[in-house]
Amino acid sequence: MTTEQPGNPMPVGVTRSKYSNRVVLKTILERSDGGLELVGMRVVIGGWVKASKEVTKEPLPPLPPPSRPPPPQQKADDGIGETEPKDSSCMEILQSLIPCLRSIMKGLGFHGNYKLRKSSKQLITTPLPPLPPQPPSSPSSLIAFLQVSDGSCVASLQVVVDSSIAPLSQLLHIGTCILVEGLLGKPSVEGKHVIELKAEKILYIGTVEHDKYPLSMKKLPIERLRDYSQFRPRTTTVASVTRISNALTLATHIFFQHQGFLHMHAPVITTTDCEGFTEKFQVTTLLDKVDKMEKPNTVMETEGVSLEVIKSAAKEKTMLVEELKRSGSNKEALAAALVDLKKTNELASQFEAREKSKSETSLLKAVKLNFSEDFFSCQTYLTVSGRLHLESYACALGNVYSVGPRFRADCAGNVAERSVIEIEMTFSQLEDAMSCADDFFKFLCKWVLDNCPEDMKFVSKQIDKTCIDRLQSLISGKVEKISYAETVDVLGKVEDKKFEIELKWGSALTAEHLSYLVEVIHKKPVMIYNYPKEVKPFYARLNDDGKTVAAFDLVVPKARTLISGSQNEERLDILSSRIKELGLPREQYEWYLDLRRHGTVEHSGFSLGLDQMILFTTGLSDARDVIPFPRSYARADN
Amino acid sequence: MTTEQPGNPMPVGVTRSKYSNRVVLKTILERSDGGLELVGMRVVIGGWVKASKEVTKEPLPPLPPPSRPPPPQQKADDGIGETEPKDSSCMEILQSLIPCLRSIMKGLGFHGNYKLRKSSKQLITTPLPPLPPQPPSSPSSLIAFLQVSDGSCVASLQVVVDSSIAPLSQLLHIGTCILVEGLLGKPSVEGKHVIELKAEKILYIGTVEHDKYPLSMKKLPIERLRDYSQFRPRTTTVASVTRISNALTLATHIFFQHQGFLHMHAPVITTTDCEGFTEKFQVTTLLDKVDKMEKPNTVMETEGVSLEVIKSAAKEKTMLVEELKRSGSNKEALAAALVDLKKTNELASQFEAREKSKSETSLLKAVKLNFSEDFFSCQTYLTVSGRLHLESYACALGNVYSVGPRFRADCAGNVAERSVIEIEMTFSQLEDAMSCADDFFKFLCKWVLDNCPEDMKFVSKQIDKTCIDRLQSLISGKVEKISYAETVDVLGKVEDKKFEIELKWGSALTAEHLSYLVEVIHKKPVMIYNYPKEVKPFYARLNDDGKTVAAFDLVVPKARTLISGSQNEERLDILSSRIKELGLPREQYEWYLDLRRHGTVEHSGFSLGLDQMILFTTGLSDARDVIPFPRSYARADN
Repeated sequence: MTTEQPGNPMPVGVTRSKYSNRVVLKTILERSDGGLELVGMRVVIGGWVKASKEVTKEPLPPLPPPSRPPPPQQKADDGIGETEPKDSSCMEILQSLIPCLRSIMKGLGFHGNYKLRKSSKQLITTPLPPLPPQPPSSPSSLIAFLQVSDGSCVASLQVVVDSSIAPLSQLLHIGTCILVEGLLGKPSVEGKHVIELKAEKILYIGTVEHDKYPLSMKKLPIERLRDYSQFRPRTTTVASVTRISNALTLATHIFFQHQGFLHMHAPVITTTDCEGFTEKFQVTTLLDKVDKMEKPNTVMETEGVSLEVIKSAAKEKTMLVEELKRSGSNKEALAAALVDLKKTNELASQFEAREKSKSETSLLKAVKLNFSEDFFSCQTYLTVSGRLHLESYACALGNVYSVGPRFRADCAGNVAERSVIEIEMTFSQLEDAMSCADDFFKFLCKWVLDNCPEDMKFVSKQIDKTCIDRLQSLISGKVEKISYAETVDVLGKVEDKKFEIELKWGSALTAEHLSYLVEVIHKKPVMIYNYPKEVKPFYARLNDDGKTVAAFDLVVPKARTLISGSQNEERLDILSSRIKELGLPREQYEWYLDLRRHGTVEHSGFSLGLDQMILFTTGLSDARDVIPFPRSYARADN
Repeated sequence: MTTEQPGNPMPVGVTRSKYSNRVVLKTILERSDGGLELVGMRVVIGGWVKASKEVTKEPLPPLPPPSRPPPPQQKADDGIGETEPKDSSCMEILQSLIPCLRSIMKGLGFHGNYKLRKSSKQLITTPLPPLPPQPPSSPSSLIAFLQVSDGSCVASLQVVVDSSIAPLSQLLHIGTCILVEGLLGKPSVEGKHVIELKAEKILYIGTVEHDKYPLSMKKLPIERLRDYSQFRPRTTTVASVTRISNALTLATHIFFQHQGFLHMHAPVITTTDCEGFTEKFQVTTLLDKVDKMEKPNTVMETEGVSLEVIKSAAKEKTMLVEELKRSGSNKEALAAALVDLKKTNELASQFEAREKSKSETSLLKAVKLNFSEDFFSCQTYLTVSGRLHLESYACALGNVYSVGPRFRADCAGNVAERSVIEIEMTFSQLEDAMSCADDFFKFLCKWVLDNCPEDMKFVSKQIDKTCIDRLQSLISGKVEKISYAETVDVLGKVEDKKFEIELKWGSALTAEHLSYLVEVIHKKPVMIYNYPKEVKPFYARLNDDGKTVAAFDLVVPKARTLISGSQNEERLDILSSRIKELGLPREQYEWYLDLRRHGTVEHSGFSLGLDQMILFTTGLSDARDVIPFPRSYARADN
């Protein structure tokens, strides 16, 4: 560490982080008394500045209590984005003035009380305890109030720094990292804080290039944060999401370990396609060798004119048309602009088609890659689901589960890489899997409410007011179980709503259908089971009717399918026919069929996408905002 | 379930698996009394037959106790591979005779006592409790003793099945799955079993195609099992390894959650190369598109003659030469055969070289793949390490950890996909990471000893007699910490041993050096720190000497580097220079450099390969035997 831990012992219940000498803020701020009993303790804390104010000290007559002005509000923790309480250009100017202001105020003998800079609002304070030895000549006319978060909890600690102990200009920027030693005391200003830290020594500063730091911007909407995934967890929202995600992962291990399941790591690189109808990512070392020989084209260009140029022209012309429409002016100009726009769009389409066929030709040239020379001597893919591999462990060890990344390349607008929890149980049937899914889902809901109360309060305030109630009602309520056939029947009788896609037996249920089912008809989570075999993977067990399979989905309000599961086909002959029926490459599945040839067993399981569970818990709506690094669109920086 | 749970209540402490009606064997067999107090209880259990014997009943005069013959030993749990107590061709013949034997013995009125089939050894038994209702005419002259395992523990339960309740021929094969209801009782034969199950109803049978089931083979060595990874966990060794792996994963979560770390899922698909010098797997959807257009060549063929044909001819000729050598006959014939073999081998080499150059040409043709059209619009890879991504979370939330798959394509003879535990801590330095690694390592050792005593006893008996003592001595002992410079110094003074590669300052330590250091010199785990910058990743923090970096390795007896860690460079200028020095593509690391531009902090972390930890714990020596599916060589079936 940069410094030695000060001599006095740590107060009871305040745990020092074992592998650094700082005290974790959660242990101060999440005490039942808000930390009051710690007043007078000396601690070292570290974290990042989430909001700041600078005030000057000046002697002022005491004001009568009723007219006490509100304390300076530090708003950084209230929004999805960071708030920036200072106008950044203003601040720069003011900061450049600090040395001047200091000497002026020192000359005027200002000290003892604080005054909010940039305003005349007066602050009532309690006097600071005597400062530790400091250079006798240091000017002590400025004070910084910093809201510091270390990510351990929603709340920030207010840290009060006198300009005599550190250059405040370095500390005030949002995102600055500090390690500070000081005394815990009652706040100098009445407000939302129960306790604050009066800094005695700044042990470390990690500065910010203020004009380039993305979180300096005011109220950055959460979708913009995807472009700055390296900094996202510094926002209160993404930090809360991460803590909730952590709680859900831990709860998963606790639930399944308690039920006697064994954890296993299902392989990510596979030659077996679990579902047979998903677009997959291929894994190869061949391209890397190719790449080292010759650099591939990365930008399409034809005869000196690029598609980008045409597209950008089309965009400009669209804006012109809109502007002309809005202003309601010259109709002829508008007509001409419309014709021009149409032409440009046509050109762009032609261009695009040509580029496409060109690139297809170049792809055809690439066919000669010899996969027998690839790392695994064959084509390998990123796994879509680990359930088939889990089966081989379940068919020896009973009940197993896995928590790991799964991949889909066909999820437009969604995420390509997701953390998925998968389980497989032997000697069990469809209803066992449904019952386990129900218990697991409720356990997760209860765990988050019990273990992340502050985070849930925060997301409930900022994102979705109903999220706590929703979880609570689920824990006590009963999940409705209805068959696919009943679902089609019930939705077919709906008269007050016309669905975009008419539902017929055999077709997949759309988000619209599911939404109506759980939000309008049942008003609670629904488990739909016995789906037509066409809409479920080949391994789902065929029911006696020969048409449906023993598969189920848990659908929750907001029309999300949280859990998908099935009893899997244990009969060799039927599984073989299903593979044939669907035209799947049988040689890929021989090892899987082996499990039916030798000691086959009734078994069932399910999978739950962690990202969907986080969305359901927090009320957020886009999975890209809850996975650690957005993975659905092209970015070169993470 | 196939059946309803019988009416009588479950005995105290015997827990029924919540999502199936069977009782997990661990709760019967791992009781302190071995299950004795459960005598008389009726339970349903399920599992796979690991060994079996069939006996006939016949009336015999009681023998005096001293001359009691040994009970039939079921050896399936003793070896790495499965034991097969029956000669399989013999068994087939005997099985075909069962109906005959039954009617003969019934005619002779044999009943009451059992006789081992295929031998005249007499078994002393206690009488079975009255059987539940059975067809009055059913022949009850044969009895099967099945050792059944459900994967919950090392031990198997002995299940005794009378031929009157099920066709024994279906049950006897190793690997058969059964679900059985019966009464727990004292064993009918004295032996290693404290308790056995007298079957009353066979509720389910999953048969085995005996001649094709790989685990029917006697004592399959563990490396052969890699070819049957779908069945491996049915062996006692791989089942124990899986339970130990499960314990290590759980212990990891418990350790870090207890220390206040947050779990995060570091991305698997990445554009950032964490180490800069590893061969990587590329992730793409381009090849899949190509594949759909034209099938790539998977077998090399030229002018009608394939390399395979020549190779197979060479093999035949080699066998001929060996045969001639063995028989010691005609010397001229041997000489001629040798010349012929040499020619064929030369031809094969030429052919191989030509094919290789041909395929290199075809690789060159493949260059025109346009990565801007790939899924992420750029080249993406499978991550080598998640530590860089963990940093961005640590630099907001304090301490984080991750458990997930990591990939290397340059690990000849090793595994390409491994589960790795990675951690990152902010406000911490090299010694903090070293101290955390030390604690974590010891916690894992202690956890396995405390929670997997039976599995450790088994691996200690079967694989490595020293493994329990090794773990125990580590828990109490102190890890030696020495710098790289001291290590070079100490090893340079060694006189009784000549190393294959001479150690000079600046070079990497080889397995031979490490082995001598921990096994001969220190005789305990050693942490080596302050390595030359050349042998560690670019992000390790440069020490003041400008030559070494704040990185460390934990090396344990058997010369394995279990943990690698470092304090990471928090200074922007130095990190930038390191990236430049190593010629890494800077644009890949801009997001990572951003963490230094804005609120940088001292931080450190480490990684531990779960496979290496399992090898260390169990005494196994090849990582392919401890990861769920072998991943280092080409196989198309998993």
